[in-house]
Amino acid sequence: MDRVSVQTNVLKANQEAATENRRLFEAEGTVVINLMSAPGAGKTSLLVATIQGLRDRYRLAVIEGDLQTDLDSQRIRALGTRSHQITTGTVCHLDARMISRALAEFPVQGLDLLVIENVGNLICPASYDLGESLRVVICCVAEGAEKPKKYPVMFHRADVVLLNKTDLAEASGVDLRELETNVREVNPKAMVFAVSCKTGVGLDAWLAWLGDAIASRSIAAAART
Amino acid sequence: MDRVSVQTNVLKANQEAATENRRLFEAEGTVVINLMSAPGAGKTSLLVATIQGLRDRYRLAVIEGDLQTDLDSQRIRALGTRSHQITTGTVCHLDARMISRALAEFPVQGLDLLVIENVGNLICPASYDLGESLRVVICCVAEGAEKPKKYPVMFHRADVVLLNKTDLAEASGVDLRELETNVREVNPKAMVFAVSCKTGVGLDAWLAWLGDAIASRSIAAAART
Repeated sequence: MDRVSVQTNVLKANQEAATENRRLFEAEGTVVINLMSAPGAGKTSLLVATIQGLRDRYRLAVIEGDLQTDLDSQRIRALGTRSHQITTGTVCHLDARMISRALAEFPVQGLDLLVIENVGNLICPASYDLGESLRVVICCVAEGAEKPKKYPVMFHRADVVLLNKTDLAEASGVDLRELETNVREVNPKAMVFAVSCKTGVGLDAWLAWLGDAIASRSIAAAART
Repeated sequence: MDRVSVQTNVLKANQEAATENRRLFEAEGTVVINLMSAPGAGKTSLLVATIQGLRDRYRLAVIEGDLQTDLDSQRIRALGTRSHQITTGTVCHLDARMISRALAEFPVQGLDLLVIENVGNLICPASYDLGESLRVVICCVAEGAEKPKKYPVMFHRADVVLLNKTDLAEASGVDLRELETNVREVNPKAMVFAVSCKTGVGLDAWLAWLGDAIASRSIAAAART
């Protein structure tokens, strides 16, 4: 079997596991975010801000994906939030089977929101459906305005794009409007939020939008029961 | 054939092509850099500064790897330097066969330095030898001090680590010494340079070191003829 056929089979098997995960999440009425970005764009910082903003209203948990270390999981647990660590070794992305194995020891029953923090990589994670409800991509402003054009698959498939570290825009010489225009060119349908997890700027709009998304899901789930 | 066997075969075939590339480069006395980093860490900016600093003394050329766009190649050609674009589509790294195919239409005879700018990815490119003499990894300070620990394979295999965008260290709240300590913990042998391609700070030391590496290679090649 050649490399392309193996890759096709891998993605097919992944899709089956992702469909099963999605069925489980939808039965629970749990909104599941697949959170993706390049290394160091601020996934864990966004997670911390999101937990702090929503934990009084919703039941939350986190699955962390990293090559090595459980530094991110430690950060989440320090907030008193449940977190499960997946260490991938040399594998550059999470896949749906890793998630279904994690769910066997980390039950998500009764959760309103599960955030899966993917491995820091702006390429490979885009190809693996995990069964999520929302694909959220963070782009660090300091990476430069042309990134959406250079990594189009990731941005094209996003439901939400967060432009983070806006506090560094001026010092980085990056034009925030140019970056946003480039996101919209690759993906006109995505919600776009410009935020700084450091200063807090823009986080209210993101939290309000996500809170509404969780609430309407909960309402829909309640109506079904 | 299962996925692991296919991957083993892929890496074996890559190694054969890399060995052939290396033989060709060494016969020419050309120093070849495999330049790797996460997206937006400053590979092309470092390339521009390196070309400007060394082009009066050495014959240089560039091979650019990107998923999409030839924006980086355009930037290099604007300096009057030869550049060849490899567009990988969805492939998340360069491999040695892509380089040997590029060499068929982009001859490197007589070059002192060839820089191969890899796809922006801190994981997968680390596994593919291209036949380079030096593995140079750029870590953007704004990515955070813990990155070497979280992406250890890339840092462990580097000959040189450049800590770029030091001008953003304070605004990012990143301790440069902690970042350097983390690099040295993963790789005690790597040369480490703290630089800012924007302000120029630290570039002299990098250019002096690289100039010496090229000169000693050229002397060795001359002695052989």
